[in-house]
Amino acid sequence: MKPRIIVVLAKDAPVRDDFALIEEVAVPVYVRTIEELRAARRDARVMLVWDLATTLIRDCGPGGLEWIQTNSIGVNAVATPEVAASKVLVTNTRGLFEQPMAEFVLASILLQAKDIRRSIENQRRGVWDKCSTLRLQGRRAAVIGVGGVGARIALLLRAVGMEVDIVGRTPRIDGGAVDGRALGPVRGIVELPQLLPEIDDLVLAAPLTDSTRGLIGAPELAAMRPHSHVVNVGRGPLLDEDALLAALQSRRIGAATLDVFETEPLKADHPFWEMENVIVSPHQSADFVGWQRAAVEMFVRNLRLWQQGEQLENVVDLRGFVLDGQVAHSTLG
Amino acid sequence: MKPRIIVVLAKDAPVRDDFALIEEVAVPVYVRTIEELRAARRDARVMLVWDLATTLIRDCGPGGLEWIQTNSIGVNAVATPEVAASKVLVTNTRGLFEQPMAEFVLASILLQAKDIRRSIENQRRGVWDKCSTLRLQGRRAAVIGVGGVGARIALLLRAVGMEVDIVGRTPRIDGGAVDGRALGPVRGIVELPQLLPEIDDLVLAAPLTDSTRGLIGAPELAAMRPHSHVVNVGRGPLLDEDALLAALQSRRIGAATLDVFETEPLKADHPFWEMENVIVSPHQSADFVGWQRAAVEMFVRNLRLWQQGEQLENVVDLRGFVLDGQVAHSTLG
Repeated sequence: MKPRIIVVLAKDAPVRDDFALIEEVAVPVYVRTIEELRAARRDARVMLVWDLATTLIRDCGPGGLEWIQTNSIGVNAVATPEVAASKVLVTNTRGLFEQPMAEFVLASILLQAKDIRRSIENQRRGVWDKCSTLRLQGRRAAVIGVGGVGARIALLLRAVGMEVDIVGRTPRIDGGAVDGRALGPVRGIVELPQLLPEIDDLVLAAPLTDSTRGLIGAPELAAMRPHSHVVNVGRGPLLDEDALLAALQSRRIGAATLDVFETEPLKADHPFWEMENVIVSPHQSADFVGWQRAAVEMFVRNLRLWQQGEQLENVVDLRGFVLDGQVAHSTLG
Repeated sequence: MKPRIIVVLAKDAPVRDDFALIEEVAVPVYVRTIEELRAARRDARVMLVWDLATTLIRDCGPGGLEWIQTNSIGVNAVATPEVAASKVLVTNTRGLFEQPMAEFVLASILLQAKDIRRSIENQRRGVWDKCSTLRLQGRRAAVIGVGGVGARIALLLRAVGMEVDIVGRTPRIDGGAVDGRALGPVRGIVELPQLLPEIDDLVLAAPLTDSTRGLIGAPELAAMRPHSHVVNVGRGPLLDEDALLAALQSRRIGAATLDVFETEPLKADHPFWEMENVIVSPHQSADFVGWQRAAVEMFVRNLRLWQQGEQLENVVDLRGFVLDGQVAHSTLG
């Protein structure tokens, strides 16, 4: 008999065609409200959290669920203190979004180095203005975050000839390997002040925790070089947006590429929208064409493992990562 | 005694500060006209062709010169039939521009894959419009040209996870290595019709010769997929611009990134300027900040070798590459 599984959708969201894959192996019960969730939980032990903005788990707890799969690498939406304290297994989509995010970071650095925004503007104005631009060779980045996203970014930037320092909470001689490629040493976050004046690109790929909130503020930005470029693909509150705005407006730093913001969508009257040295990206660095189907496939694979009593893929270890009453998976490392 | 060397400048070009490096080891004679060249040639055996648009060599031949260094990878400006038939050595700037050009090609592909132009336009309009974009993983390119530029492009695109076919005049099982990295097999240009329907990006990095002029025309574009992207960093006439325009306007292909054109600067009324699926770049893919100094340093290194009677770096083999009464270095390979 097919198991009943709960799929949490946003308030007005339709049932996607991709969910037919779930229907082949299970009976999905789509819920959009707390009442629907409470009703569905009576005879379901598995939940797929499709809507990442949901507050359902925060509002009514995990109940008798055994396993929650969330549609993201970050688990903010589901990893409440109550979930962390319970025996419910939480799995995420590790492996799906890291490489697209790394590609977005590389694109953002090339956009700066090759001054592509000016090229596009020149084209718009019909101006043939031959200019020299910068090379990736010898360019140096620091990537904060040693999880899957930070590791993939570091490896991709190195693959194109950049020098990359990986920065984590704790320094390590050996950061291990991803896909058989060694990450090399990890620098401790305490070394950041010495590192900031030496880099061209500062990439934030850490999860949001108590120790990472406001990690980059006015003092850090003041230590950076005038041409330097900040990229945030982690979470908005990793950096102090007011301090960043001031640093960009005064040209204390050169540019920023922001895929995440303290408030999303970014407010319509925010100065970032109109700044030529800011790229505003609507939290889409991870979103590749077809990700929804790939995420459903990943869930179905896990569901088969669960039915067979096997170890699930991408189980998140929630111990010890408490933030503002929430729990965040992993940290700086 | 310091040797006299001729430096060919454009008609109104100033003497650059970088040339002080030449003055340390030689007496540069700056020429801008045919009369100045004729006078200077009486007691100089070396020429640095700084101005690539010069016709001086074509107009009055190499005379008694022993060695001509040109400021580019392509040697169209100096490699006339008369030069090819003479014993004058021609050297180029191999090694300086290949990597920046490869980075430009990568940037152009990321711009398409990540739909960055739309992101920038959305930002300009203040629109938060979350969209899925494409991945480099699994994306496939064909690079036409197995010289230094084509090889660097192929290696860089592979380094970021793309599949790359290298296409040359003659198929080879082993394309050799660049910087210790194997290029693998080279496909023959006769295989292009089979390849075109399978690729996402077609990159032109071949020199302009009789066999490459008009290489990509209406039939080739018709064979490509509707979303595919053409990148030209070689020479404008490698592709038929009218056919490309028609293919882009009818959305037969998806996009083009053009750094070179049949006529440069691109004419002010050319439709390419206003097309949202065309990136117009003013023949600057190779121009990195500081290239002029690096090129002077390369010349000075060669000058020292020449003075010591040693083998020069980057000697160009001009045998057999005749085009429109000119001679072009290398070919498809």
